[in-house]
Amino acid sequence: MTEVVIAGIGQTEVGEHWSIGLRELAFAAIQDAVKDSGGLKPQALFVGNMLAPNLSNQAHLGALIADYAGLTGIEAVTVEAAGASGGAALRQGYLALASGMVDVALVLGVEKFSDKIGPNVDEALATTSDSDFEAVQGMTTTAQAALLMRRYMHENHVPANGFAGFALTAHANGAGNPCAMFRKAIKPETYAKAEMVSDPINMFDMAPNADGAAALVLTRRELFPSNWQNPLVKIAGSASASDTLALHDRKDMLFFDTAEISAQKALKQAGLTLNEIDFFEYDDVFSIYAALQLEAVGFAIKGQGWRLAADGEIGLKGKIPCATMGGMKARGFAGGAAGVYQAVEAATQLRGQARANQIVGAKAGLIQSLGGPASTAVSHILQKLD
Amino acid sequence: MTEVVIAGIGQTEVGEHWSIGLRELAFAAIQDAVKDSGGLKPQALFVGNMLAPNLSNQAHLGALIADYAGLTGIEAVTVEAAGASGGAALRQGYLALASGMVDVALVLGVEKFSDKIGPNVDEALATTSDSDFEAVQGMTTTAQAALLMRRYMHENHVPANGFAGFALTAHANGAGNPCAMFRKAIKPETYAKAEMVSDPINMFDMAPNADGAAALVLTRRELFPSNWQNPLVKIAGSASASDTLALHDRKDMLFFDTAEISAQKALKQAGLTLNEIDFFEYDDVFSIYAALQLEAVGFAIKGQGWRLAADGEIGLKGKIPCATMGGMKARGFAGGAAGVYQAVEAATQLRGQARANQIVGAKAGLIQSLGGPASTAVSHILQKLD
Repeated sequence: MTEVVIAGIGQTEVGEHWSIGLRELAFAAIQDAVKDSGGLKPQALFVGNMLAPNLSNQAHLGALIADYAGLTGIEAVTVEAAGASGGAALRQGYLALASGMVDVALVLGVEKFSDKIGPNVDEALATTSDSDFEAVQGMTTTAQAALLMRRYMHENHVPANGFAGFALTAHANGAGNPCAMFRKAIKPETYAKAEMVSDPINMFDMAPNADGAAALVLTRRELFPSNWQNPLVKIAGSASASDTLALHDRKDMLFFDTAEISAQKALKQAGLTLNEIDFFEYDDVFSIYAALQLEAVGFAIKGQGWRLAADGEIGLKGKIPCATMGGMKARGFAGGAAGVYQAVEAATQLRGQARANQIVGAKAGLIQSLGGPASTAVSHILQKLD
Repeated sequence: MTEVVIAGIGQTEVGEHWSIGLRELAFAAIQDAVKDSGGLKPQALFVGNMLAPNLSNQAHLGALIADYAGLTGIEAVTVEAAGASGGAALRQGYLALASGMVDVALVLGVEKFSDKIGPNVDEALATTSDSDFEAVQGMTTTAQAALLMRRYMHENHVPANGFAGFALTAHANGAGNPCAMFRKAIKPETYAKAEMVSDPINMFDMAPNADGAAALVLTRRELFPSNWQNPLVKIAGSASASDTLALHDRKDMLFFDTAEISAQKALKQAGLTLNEIDFFEYDDVFSIYAALQLEAVGFAIKGQGWRLAADGEIGLKGKIPCATMGGMKARGFAGGAAGVYQAVEAATQLRGQARANQIVGAKAGLIQSLGGPASTAVSHILQKLD
């Protein structure tokens, strides 16, 4: 089997980039990633984007961004799977490399929420849920997550502030990430006093929508110079799974089937067990998603994922460090870029370049990108090459 | 090298499907394709769609359609490259098969223009062109094509009605396609009297936006039973290229670089010369595009593509039959489904199942799907397996 490696990584700060457009944002991340790869020449571009046709009136991002990045002529396409668009773009890039038809691929995630504001953003986000049966009833993605969280709390007897650990961990780790939107640890009382957005989801139980771009240069191991300056990181496992968009169509809405299926497939491909995973970049766009992912992947039994966070076990020195560079919560949720940020951050950990946030001795990490309430889940296992 | 084959094809009629939604339309084509494949079980779904986030307020089509089609759980993703979305989805499906990680893939193209009407459709289409530098000036995709056509006519001394051959051929062939939107041949005087849409583009120089879905089941040759009822069709070549979205950024706007690059790559992979291509499914969403594709691919010299049509050489018995089942013009332009319709029609020809429209002895066909004025071009060569 071909070994696909991450040869270059790049990212912009996550935040509100009012003064630059989608293509400039994309270019900044691409430029960094190509430079970091030692100047490899991409033959293909896979763009993960979620909402640009709505937020920026711009579709056809593949050709647009390839051209703007000085790569006119190369193969280029947009890949969309709601919030999992970044993970899905990585998956397509991986498949292209694995096919042997592409030698160097660029995987880009980019999103620009600040091109629109207020209700327009909620409307755009609602296109990622079931338009005919949920969105049309006024169900926003936040309201949907609130229903999930309320049910979870009821069934599992979670106390008020039981989810605080997710936000506390994310913000503590965000403090060490120069690209994070929020770089300040928060206190338990800050969480406890936070205003409600959609009860029981408070300001700290959801990630802020933000602008950002992240990029990866992928190649095959045999094509890469052996004297390269950075440790090489291999994509050891790659898998994706889908589920219903609407929650009412699920047998058990409190179990994320796709998170389980895709993680198990990726682990099997990598030949690793869960015990050999040193950190987990989950998709904490809502803290309830993070809890459900910990359970579906197998780090906690059903109904007990929240306890890992409450007990401090997801911190940098915990049993299973999560959101090691701040996660969606503190780094910011840059839509279709989110899954690519996860990969950039995981590669940073595996290269041993995470500074204050370094997981000592990290050899393998699992990243998981969700579209909606795990209607899509894309899992990748990144592994340090010796 | 792995041989990727088309094991099943399915399509709906192209037209205005007011009474059914996007997911129902998609399901109809999927059902036909899976049945035609003898009931193969898809492990992955690649959805080519162009405008559903705008026209139908629905993104995240991969998971949505997988679920509606009874395939909940499989890998599923949306692929977008404007009008080339269908071709791009086929390319991603091909790469997945070629990687060896997927054994059976479903490639779906689907579009539902009738979810919105009038100016909303033009606005949605404008998102596929350069929003910041062209669309914002009021440039629609039709206006852009009209500028191209006017310049082409001026430089190459094309007489009034010089493009009639494209529409006449398309409508003549549409008459033999039970899924075509227009199934009636037209006369030269009908073309000559047609109303202008955007001078010099008249009603017959552009394809009608329409609803439709088309699907393919792909697998690898060795996985397919040798006693299968239909002749197997192989994907012998697959390539994609990108160019600027805005016409003003091109060195020569009257040459479609991407059409040349992607066709040459696909031919090289297939080990075929242009002489061995028995028919060409171009992207005649505007007749000027068809003329420029004939030139870029090499069937005509620069400036003379229109003459092939005028001289009857693109007819079913001409030198290079084009739009053999009616093309975008008469079959109808179903957006992100268009490129998949091309593949379904080419497979029909190569299986020898095209009835009145059959190209006798057809062994290989080139299909080319464009996004914008060839800002993206995706080329595939389909070949009959002996």
